[in-house]
Amino acid sequence: MSGGGNFTQRMIEIIARNAAYAAAIDAGKLAQWVEMFTEDGLYLAQPRENADRGLPLATIRCEGRGMLADRVHAIEKTMVFAPRYVRHLISAPQVFNVSATEIHCVSNFLVTQTLTMQPTQIMACGEYRDRWRIAENGAHLLAARIAVFDSELVPNSLIYPL
Amino acid sequence: MSGGGNFTQRMIEIIARNAAYAAAIDAGKLAQWVEMFTEDGLYLAQPRENADRGLPLATIRCEGRGMLADRVHAIEKTMVFAPRYVRHLISAPQVFNVSATEIHCVSNFLVTQTLTMQPTQIMACGEYRDRWRIAENGAHLLAARIAVFDSELVPNSLIYPL
Amino acid sequence: MSGGGNFTQRMIEIIARNAAYAAAIDAGKLAQWVEMFTEDGLYLAQPRENADRGLPLATIRCEGRGMLADRVHAIEKTMVFAPRYVRHLISAPQVFNVSATEIHCVSNFLVTQTLTMQPTQIMACGEYRDRWRIAENGAHLLAARIAVFDSELVPNSLIYPL
Repeated sequence: MSGGGNFTQRMIEIIARNAAYAAAIDAGKLAQWVEMFTEDGLYLAQPRENADRGLPLATIRCEGRGMLADRVHAIEKTMVFAPRYVRHLISAPQVFNVSATEIHCVSNFLVTQTLTMQPTQIMACGEYRDRWRIAENGAHLLAARIAVFDSELVPNSLIYPL
Repeated sequence: MSGGGNFTQRMIEIIARNAAYAAAIDAGKLAQWVEMFTEDGLYLAQPRENADRGLPLATIRCEGRGMLADRVHAIEKTMVFAPRYVRHLISAPQVFNVSATEIHCVSNFLVTQTLTMQPTQIMACGEYRDRWRIAENGAHLLAARIAVFDSELVPNSLIYPL
Repeated sequence: MSGGGNFTQRMIEIIARNAAYAAAIDAGKLAQWVEMFTEDGLYLAQPRENADRGLPLATIRCEGRGMLADRVHAIEKTMVFAPRYVRHLISAPQVFNVSATEIHCVSNFLVTQTLTMQPTQIMACGEYRDRWRIAENGAHLLAARIAVFDSELVPNSLIYPL
């Protein structure tokens, strides 16, 4: 089924990377979020309805670090929205394909949102469909993360990445 | 306390199995859910009030793969309910008794539910009280999973298994 | 980045300890919660607004096991509040500083609350900022846990520890 120390270390590595991913966004350190992707890394936030039907429409689409950085710039400088805290809970992954240079896996996520003087509410939940690229030095970077979320209705609209 | 690589591999094995359990239900692949149990495996979904008092009443009770498959058939063919997505988040387990052939453990869970054009809401949270049976080939199957949930009020009633 | 079996075992150890922490509170075994801290261990529950600005004000402050036990006594004997179940989901940690005797790490948490005949709701979410002390026998105890929560509004007020 799984077996052995290699599987264990790979699971823990992904779990640790997802903790860092969550912390980068939740602490508002969005430059760190960008650096978790490969130079040409793909980030999509897409309603499950569309993802399951193979429709291309996505709520956020960033192809490569340039577009990821643009998104960060928009969030920090140009978008107008009520201040809020976000918080990610990411489950352990299901690991599918593994090679020396890539890992394909899927994790569930739940993201909460807290506006000033408001109770915490669920912003979105869904699953990350990931391709992690493993560099020669052992670094793991996201070649692709598709954040498929269950509800088309995201309260107060989607500002921060899932 | 814990100690050593064996404990680590056992934890990761359960964590990985729970990720597969969540994915089977969340993706609507309920036949895979059935296959996670032993032939005579027990599945209960039971309010905490009842579980803590030792009362037998359960909202869902399936004794063995036959009854589990019946439940799946009911969900897919005969029950009438509004379409919805569900999503499981399962915490790492507390591991209690371990032998060469069985592991007893408890994990917390949170399940969300998303109806068409509705925001995501909490469906239930609680704990899984599990007995995993370890086959000679290393496979882990559920001899028993008792899903004890905190609220008697499950919005829109309990359709999919917790 | 991470690398090797030591990192893996350390992660699993913290993950297992957090599962025990959650279970102690969720099962109402608050004496076990106290025993997870060092003799002079610090527990704070603090709104993120205050924590991020370095303001000292905390909703709960317990310095040492004596004050932790006082808090437990208050919950069990003197505080008046509607009965409720709580449930913790704790993410895998980000591990920062590690020595032979201490581990600094941060984990996200979500705590739900269920009042009698009420649906489950989010009580609070946020992050634990932890210092674990490692005893010579390998036991891990909390020298400090600061539970920083995102919303100042905690429904029905904060009774049980986060």
